[in-house]
Amino acid sequence: MSRASDDGKGPTAYGSPEDFKRAVQEMQATFPTEGVVSTHPDDLFAHGFSTNVYHEGIPHSVVVYPQSTEDVVKIVKIANNYRMPVVAYSGATSLEGHFIGTKGGGICVDMSGMDKILEIHESDSDLVCQPGVGWVEINHALKEQGIPLFFPIDPAPTATIGGMLSTGCSGSETINSMESFLLDTHHTPANAVRYGTAKGEWFLNATVVLPSGEVIKTRQRSRKSSAGFDVTKLFIGAEGTLGIVTEVTIRLAPVVPTTVATAQFPDVRSASEAVIEILNHGVGIQCVELCDAAFMEATNLHGPSGRKYAVTDHLFFKLQGPTQASLKETARIVQEVAKKHGGSSFKVAKNDEEAEDMWADRKNAHYSSLLWGGEGTKAWATDVCVPISKLPELVYETQKDIERSGIKGPIVGHAGDGNFHSLLLFKTDEELVKVRDLVHRMVERAIAREGTCMHGEHGVGIGKREFLYEELGEGTVKLMKKIKKTIDPLNLFNPGKLYPDAPKSKSSSGDGH
Amino acid sequence: MSRASDDGKGPTAYGSPEDFKRAVQEMQATFPTEGVVSTHPDDLFAHGFSTNVYHEGIPHSVVVYPQSTEDVVKIVKIANNYRMPVVAYSGATSLEGHFIGTKGGGICVDMSGMDKILEIHESDSDLVCQPGVGWVEINHALKEQGIPLFFPIDPAPTATIGGMLSTGCSGSETINSMESFLLDTHHTPANAVRYGTAKGEWFLNATVVLPSGEVIKTRQRSRKSSAGFDVTKLFIGAEGTLGIVTEVTIRLAPVVPTTVATAQFPDVRSASEAVIEILNHGVGIQCVELCDAAFMEATNLHGPSGRKYAVTDHLFFKLQGPTQASLKETARIVQEVAKKHGGSSFKVAKNDEEAEDMWADRKNAHYSSLLWGGEGTKAWATDVCVPISKLPELVYETQKDIERSGIKGPIVGHAGDGNFHSLLLFKTDEELVKVRDLVHRMVERAIAREGTCMHGEHGVGIGKREFLYEELGEGTVKLMKKIKKTIDPLNLFNPGKLYPDAPKSKSSSGDGH
Repeated sequence: MSRASDDGKGPTAYGSPEDFKRAVQEMQATFPTEGVVSTHPDDLFAHGFSTNVYHEGIPHSVVVYPQSTEDVVKIVKIANNYRMPVVAYSGATSLEGHFIGTKGGGICVDMSGMDKILEIHESDSDLVCQPGVGWVEINHALKEQGIPLFFPIDPAPTATIGGMLSTGCSGSETINSMESFLLDTHHTPANAVRYGTAKGEWFLNATVVLPSGEVIKTRQRSRKSSAGFDVTKLFIGAEGTLGIVTEVTIRLAPVVPTTVATAQFPDVRSASEAVIEILNHGVGIQCVELCDAAFMEATNLHGPSGRKYAVTDHLFFKLQGPTQASLKETARIVQEVAKKHGGSSFKVAKNDEEAEDMWADRKNAHYSSLLWGGEGTKAWATDVCVPISKLPELVYETQKDIERSGIKGPIVGHAGDGNFHSLLLFKTDEELVKVRDLVHRMVERAIAREGTCMHGEHGVGIGKREFLYEELGEGTVKLMKKIKKTIDPLNLFNPGKLYPDAPKSKSSSGDGH
Repeated sequence: MSRASDDGKGPTAYGSPEDFKRAVQEMQATFPTEGVVSTHPDDLFAHGFSTNVYHEGIPHSVVVYPQSTEDVVKIVKIANNYRMPVVAYSGATSLEGHFIGTKGGGICVDMSGMDKILEIHESDSDLVCQPGVGWVEINHALKEQGIPLFFPIDPAPTATIGGMLSTGCSGSETINSMESFLLDTHHTPANAVRYGTAKGEWFLNATVVLPSGEVIKTRQRSRKSSAGFDVTKLFIGAEGTLGIVTEVTIRLAPVVPTTVATAQFPDVRSASEAVIEILNHGVGIQCVELCDAAFMEATNLHGPSGRKYAVTDHLFFKLQGPTQASLKETARIVQEVAKKHGGSSFKVAKNDEEAEDMWADRKNAHYSSLLWGGEGTKAWATDVCVPISKLPELVYETQKDIERSGIKGPIVGHAGDGNFHSLLLFKTDEELVKVRDLVHRMVERAIAREGTCMHGEHGVGIGKREFLYEELGEGTVKLMKKIKKTIDPLNLFNPGKLYPDAPKSKSSSGDGH
């Protein structure tokens, strides 16, 4: 094995095209099985672009399909020898270009072959799996085996465990592809109110291949440990820049009776106030979704249930309880509080079928909105998150801004988390410019309201890098970059993602305040 | 300001005694107010030793009481100039010597002056505070102001937010001092089943002074963010080795009706099986505690409620529900499942007073056990954590081992987490040797059962450093040390804690498996 490019180049200097060619040859020799190493243009394109992403896509030099941790180690060692960038690829449902190629080329490591559930520990409420398995497949498998447990973090239906860990997602609104809308599999339950996010305690440990090719297992399988800071957390949200996850232990939650309820409100403020009071009751709320008047209009025309709603702000609830009796109790309390805040037309599903039918209207937000926009409509889906108390004014101002711009933009929010999405519709390049400006103003408005973030759920990728300094402060980003440099001194893993190049402006104090 | 020791010394070389003397003088000049800088031997002793800790204590060179983030920055800058170790000190309830001094001397930064609640955001269910405030004080303040929220992580009653974050604690069993037992304020609710641990999503952000003196704020205040890996998590469990926390935003939970129930079981296995099935029902269990026969014997003699229990393994439950009706429902389900697994004598408290009275028996575990041991008895409290399914055999084997050793050692476990404590009683140095061996065997037995950890809750400190390699694997510990070195190249912050010096043995493969 010849070592290339290890002299006379800076730590971020990658190999030459000739080096890359030899690296690909070495990979082909290492993995002689047909299809494991692919340089087919269709493959390179499919892995470097996405219909979700309004960012420039770049093809990779090669796509490799590992079957094991050992395979990933081999790939990473070759990447080190020839200084080739490495981009991990899994469900590819992310919205911010996390998996697009690196200028000049690199290795795309497609984890789809590592999609096994390895161990189910029903008694321990946990499960060991490979990163390429989807959360939907996991939940199907558990159901099929009659195990009354599920994994409650619920982003796009084709999202995989590896990607969910790496983006620190929280469920909802990552999107697989335009096809997924049309097939009506787009899915937005957003269970974060009840179950929190991927950043919480759902990932008990991970086996990770580091940029050096070393393999670590971050933690044991037990639920609690105070053995120093939790190294698992370092990889959650790191977007593949610090390591490639090859095995994960996830925690499971018990399946409990669930139902759906809806209520209409005079405005966003009263709906938000109702949400706050309901949450503080401690009743079983799995999620609560704010659907604005624009969205209800779209739903009246194109919602799958065929129900007609008043064109005003609504809340959609998923309620849960260990028994039907407690579920009823919860519904009663929710209705009472909603009424107190001007809520009306409170409706609870009578049975599971009706619940599913009602929820379908919320679930289909993207599709209904697209149809509402008319033929040729595309949507830019984005989201921000603020402390709940700031949600009403943020939604209100965003609605006004959307109106002024002449764009249609239904708003659907995970009200229980202070997190909302706008689906900004456009057809022309001119409208796209307006949409892009709207997104930027929405982000800035959110950041100005403390605790706001560039993205509640969708990660940074390449799409939001520029906002990282503004959100986290220079000191924190500097620290993140320092850690990146320590773990990946050659900048091989997913370069150009997550970490911004330099502060947007020099006005901040540098101490993160 | 004269720079000392910055040439000709390695990165871990500290200043000379002369340097330290000048550093103290500089601190006295910087903080001229009486009492802010103390070199009184009583102070140095009080901060370097603890009755909790069966480890050698070492006095600090000086104790400083900062009032603000800026004060801490000043202290850290002086520490840098004179290469003085810095040990943060807060509630000092930890069991593993986290806060003892550094050989050769150093600065103890006592955070007790930074004990303010700065902002309460009822609508957002969060609160901003300084690290020196206790969780008990926070919950008192919320109650007094009629805010129906509380902070649910519940370790020792005098534990502070800063220490809880830094040890990644999960509630229960950290101990303030022998006085706390005698005052009957020792408190072990262990709410982790319902609320998880400090490693979850309870700390929304932290303002941290880094070893360089730089200040960062890890995150905004919003509940969700996917802006890269969460830097907050780096400081949770880092035991003051990576930074000193000076401000924290914590998330609060709604106060809901709670009651207590107890049941007796023929053995640990049937009790554990009942726990697993109950948890998988998704009913409102705040915590479930396993109390073994030995502990019940101690409780019959010295329990504060005066109740008499069968001398067999028991479960103590804290049940919760949004309403009294749902609470009753939960109790019914728990009783049903308990019965199915051989549980009997199921008792639910009739009202809040009775609930408190019943819980007092569990809460008083340490005190009852000490009295059971007779005059002059001391207790070594330790804990391990395994996947729940392994709990019965681990408890069983530990009980046998304790019996064989001739030591009295009641076992009290947070069964819902697979986490249990043994309170090993001793009077003589001979017995202490036996106890120490028991603890080591208990830890090794736990580690052999996968997912087990040296300590479910109490951190590493100096007491458990040697087990870190065995638990996490060489690769993970190497990575932790690398991060420590990157953030604290001079090894100024809490040196000698957390990170072990070298692998215990070379038998492991180094890949963490």
